Amino acid sequence: MHKWRLRLEYDGTRFSGWQVQPNQITIQSELESAVRHVFDDDTIRVVASGRTDAGVHALGQVVHFRSEAKRTPEQVRRGLNSRLPAEIACLEAALAHPDFHAQQSAVGKLYRYVMRTAPSRSALQRDRCWQLRYAVDVEAMRTALQTLVGRHDFSSFRAAGCAAKSPVRTILRGEVLVQEDALWVELYGEGFLRHMVRNIVGSLHEVGRRRQTPDWFSYLLDAKDRNQAGVTAPAAGLFLVRVDYPADLRVP
Amino acid sequence: MHKWRLRLEYDGTRFSGWQVQPNQITIQSELESAVRHVFDDDTIRVVASGRTDAGVHALGQVVHFRSEAKRTPEQVRRGLNSRLPAEIACLEAALAHPDFHAQQSAVGKLYRYVMRTAPSRSALQRDRCWQLRYAVDVEAMRTALQTLVGRHDFSSFRAAGCAAKSPVRTILRGEVLVQEDALWVELYGEGFLRHMVRNIVGSLHEVGRRRQTPDWFSYLLDAKDRNQAGVTAPAAGLFLVRVDYPADLRVP
Repeated sequence: MHKWRLRLEYDGTRFSGWQVQPNQITIQSELESAVRHVFDDDTIRVVASGRTDAGVHALGQVVHFRSEAKRTPEQVRRGLNSRLPAEIACLEAALAHPDFHAQQSAVGKLYRYVMRTAPSRSALQRDRCWQLRYAVDVEAMRTALQTLVGRHDFSSFRAAGCAAKSPVRTILRGEVLVQEDALWVELYGEGFLRHMVRNIVGSLHEVGRRRQTPDWFSYLLDAKDRNQAGVTAPAAGLFLVRVDYPADLRVP
Repeated sequence: MHKWRLRLEYDGTRFSGWQVQPNQITIQSELESAVRHVFDDDTIRVVASGRTDAGVHALGQVVHFRSEAKRTPEQVRRGLNSRLPAEIACLEAALAHPDFHAQQSAVGKLYRYVMRTAPSRSALQRDRCWQLRYAVDVEAMRTALQTLVGRHDFSSFRAAGCAAKSPVRTILRGEVLVQEDALWVELYGEGFLRHMVRNIVGSLHEVGRRRQTPDWFSYLLDAKDRNQAGVTAPAAGLFLVRVDYPADLRVP
């Protein structure tokens, strides 16, 4: 039995998120269909580092699966790319350590949220950013975001339906990067609750618009109440950039 | 009578190029429909800095038109963006100098051609790059490209149906920029012949693959024969980045 690890890029716009659902086109359903074809095995299931919501994109989602069939990495990557729809690409395919698990082995995840600050909407970045309607105070957003770095109870930023046992998560790095026509909010952490990044960005936007001061974020952490925080930022602006794993899970 | 100048971004993928054609959806036809609605005048024609082919994108196409109706720049930009399809955006609308002409007043145009060098195809950059299948020699491409800088007869890089009277053009700057997963070929010049950028890139690719040496470009300039040069690079990789005009054509 071989364990495989894939790195995927996708444009989430026309998919109903990652996870297989009845009568929906999802990234997982498209990927499993391609993997099953390439390995000629209809029983293969794929496991991702985490689910992404409908409309969310990935520059480097990681998945694993097992198969008895023998293939070379090049065969797998090329086979998948010729079978997958244009909106999903396999960037890399490699044999993985037998203990590798795309979700459970992950030690760090980088998310990027793109807020477009130019006054007019973009044609080429449509479905890939949140078009802001107001000028925002970047320094205030940076101050607010620093409040979240570290280990905290993120109940105020957790979606109602989130199934995680604990609301405690660790954010290792949080930055607001100024690009030509956009702000990138980057969050690096060990793991995230459902809608956590989008809920943080929605609240950051309130601070950026000066409807709240940066110290509101301390209040939100203490409140542990989703109703106190800002709206959930649109899915289209969110990118799963990278998932990190321990070096000792490389192929032996 | 007022003269207006617009700066446009578009994703050329699903359009049959810039120019109005019977039974085709073009950028010009969509734009004229929106402009006519906003100005309530069915006679308005728009003039662009130049045509772009089917599948070619723009980050900063410039157009002008005239209208008797009075509108504010903000009304025009917002009105157009609510009326135009998502693949076309008006980045800027401004009243122009009475003598301003989007094509005839242009003094410089910047084109960027994106060649993807990563081994696998991209999901998010699909339709926005040329996916290369071979490693390329960037230094050889740079040497070849420098041959074209200056005033030359570009007959070898001119499409068969090109209607321009003279094949002589001036390239002011030519660069090959190395990006993370791509090469950008940027050409800045006073004007370009039909398919000229794509034909130059197709020939650069031959040099990059080492099927030709850089001095082949001198030979091509001398040959003045389209059949000697490389293939026309795919439209999807080409972006009209910017069009420059003299400062004295600002609104008086």
